Amino acid sequence: MPAPVRFELLGVDTRSNARRGLLRTPHGTVETPVFMPVGTQATVKGVVPELLRACGSQMLLANTYHLALRPGEEVVRSLGGLHRFMAWDGPILTDSGGFQAFSLSDRATLTESGVAFRSHLDGSLLDLTPERAIAIQEALGADVAMVLDHCPALPAGKEAVAEATERTIRWARRCQRARTRDDQAVFGILQGGSHADLRSECAERLVEIGFDGYAIGGVSVGESPEEIRKALEVSTPHLPAHQARYLMGVGRPQDVLDAIAAGVDMFDCVLPTRNGRNATCLTRRGPVRMRNAAHKADPRPIEDGCDCPACSRFSRGYIRHLFLADEMLGPILASVHNLAFLHRLVRDAREAIGEGRYDRFRAEALEALGP
Amino acid sequence: MPAPVRFELLGVDTRSNARRGLLRTPHGTVETPVFMPVGTQATVKGVVPELLRACGSQMLLANTYHLALRPGEEVVRSLGGLHRFMAWDGPILTDSGGFQAFSLSDRATLTESGVAFRSHLDGSLLDLTPERAIAIQEALGADVAMVLDHCPALPAGKEAVAEATERTIRWARRCQRARTRDDQAVFGILQGGSHADLRSECAERLVEIGFDGYAIGGVSVGESPEEIRKALEVSTPHLPAHQARYLMGVGRPQDVLDAIAAGVDMFDCVLPTRNGRNATCLTRRGPVRMRNAAHKADPRPIEDGCDCPACSRFSRGYIRHLFLADEMLGPILASVHNLAFLHRLVRDAREAIGEGRYDRFRAEALEALGP
Ligand SMILES: [Zn+2]
Ligand SMILES: [Zn+2]
Repeated sequence: MPAPVRFELLGVDTRSNARRGLLRTPHGTVETPVFMPVGTQATVKGVVPELLRACGSQMLLANTYHLALRPGEEVVRSLGGLHRFMAWDGPILTDSGGFQAFSLSDRATLTESGVAFRSHLDGSLLDLTPERAIAIQEALGADVAMVLDHCPALPAGKEAVAEATERTIRWARRCQRARTRDDQAVFGILQGGSHADLRSECAERLVEIGFDGYAIGGVSVGESPEEIRKALEVSTPHLPAHQARYLMGVGRPQDVLDAIAAGVDMFDCVLPTRNGRNATCLTRRGPVRMRNAAHKADPRPIEDGCDCPACSRFSRGYIRHLFLADEMLGPILASVHNLAFLHRLVRDAREAIGEGRYDRFRAEALEALGP
Repeated sequence: MPAPVRFELLGVDTRSNARRGLLRTPHGTVETPVFMPVGTQATVKGVVPELLRACGSQMLLANTYHLALRPGEEVVRSLGGLHRFMAWDGPILTDSGGFQAFSLSDRATLTESGVAFRSHLDGSLLDLTPERAIAIQEALGADVAMVLDHCPALPAGKEAVAEATERTIRWARRCQRARTRDDQAVFGILQGGSHADLRSECAERLVEIGFDGYAIGGVSVGESPEEIRKALEVSTPHLPAHQARYLMGVGRPQDVLDAIAAGVDMFDCVLPTRNGRNATCLTRRGPVRMRNAAHKADPRPIEDGCDCPACSRFSRGYIRHLFLADEMLGPILASVHNLAFLHRLVRDAREAIGEGRYDRFRAEALEALGP
């Protein structure tokens, strides 16, 4: 099978494992490290495609579980696939629904066969086997699909984590066998918690099966930055240097900076848009709350020096007014800025890596961000 | 005082009173007839300025009453005025708050001095005299301000309408005297209900005072198309041919077509954005409800042949999905299309007037629209 998605490693930082690269996909080439905005239901909440482009988005994420339930993958396929459906002609990655087996565990029954969901919409059943997860994602037609994985509920003893890891490997093999499209990449997902032996075992076995890239799963499920770092430390050394590494669900700026240092290339998170809807804006000096009375007549943009479609035209005073007046444009502009912030953070990281100064860049950025 | 806003009559239809013209303002020239999207709180709900431009918006409306209460006109002034505040560099018209004395009558006490509002936000008092209405609008800095008028509550006997008309004339005089900016136009507002004598008397007296344009008020308060037509019939003949005529609050496509035939140049209405948020889209063949199951896998745009930012990229199937999934992008795209529809309707009307075939254009458009 030809490799529809190829990762090209451009360089590694001298004092950390930070990497620069290019992810070539059927819908264009992405510079890594990259942050992917989340469009769960085939739309990044409130942000039209041209604003996504304008704030620096390269690649989006959409959700298999949500789209399979509504509108259904066959509707998306019949309307030309996900790119056409949501009018995003850049690369798209779809997750597999494995995370929802964890986050919606009260609606999910997990067996060796797969995950049976009772729909959060109408109670109907969605039987998500590894084969079905691949079939849905092939119907959606993203550039990168993810294997179905088993992310154990926390807290979990080592035995439970080991069992979930074994199942993840078996499901990964079933996913690999189920593939029929040669224009779509599939990434494997590492589980293993913070157990070095389980992570390395999982990595080795997934690499044996052979995927187009590898995700570090089982983080962003409520653990501390220290635990994320530990999971990365025990995972990345076992992954092929010349394939993309994706840390699922992580978007806190500090965590992104740490993960880049550990050698991660791809990120996704609802944080920028969720925070934006709640009037919390990301800046290099930490969050700014737009409803704060201090911004009432504040002529400054959300962030000085930001050239995003929000900051280039609108004052904090205006954006505060929009939030107080319950106007849609408030969440829209705050989301756009927050996405621009994360895209700029990883862009600056790419530059720093390219110039061999990522360590200093990260230290200074963390210092400015605060805790 | 120099005329900051000049209306240039380009031509009148041969078989109706339909007119083409240019409204020159400090923020650019508007082709009339024109439809103005409503940005009550200094934002057209959910639509960023570049999408407003892209769907054909020339001039916007904002609301004195709402902006005086929140964020306060001094905040808007200190942030550079309304154009800068909402990042719309085209012409803006502000209404005077007179309509809110009618629509929020349970919060308003009307005396000869003016209208005292209890804020719908926090119960605080807003004492809206004619002088204050002008002062607020000067602080906001729109291109066109409106006089404070008295729109009588319906049903009203002729005596009550006559009294409101007299007061409207007295208030108009006070507004004219209160003006201090020479870069802002002020339009008078005709009252008089459907009484020909009151309308003509009101028109003559307002023209004596001398305004930069004239609005037909006291319609769009629940009357039938027939009543609107009658109010126009008895109003427009008394208005100077070489000044702009603005029909306040009317946006139903059929009513717009009729009013253009009666010689109206300017319109505003919340209809396109309000309908859009409710998933009802305007088309030349009447409304289309986007939640309808028929659109589930419908690859067509909202309206065939529409080149708006919604129709040029998105299918009915996608937009239906957005509404069912309660995604902001649904209301945004439907609003954008509905605005584009009204802008196209008046653009086509302009062309038809220019080519002396407005009567036929109107008849065919009304036939296609249905009742
Ligand atoms: Zn910004
Ligand atoms: Zn359209």
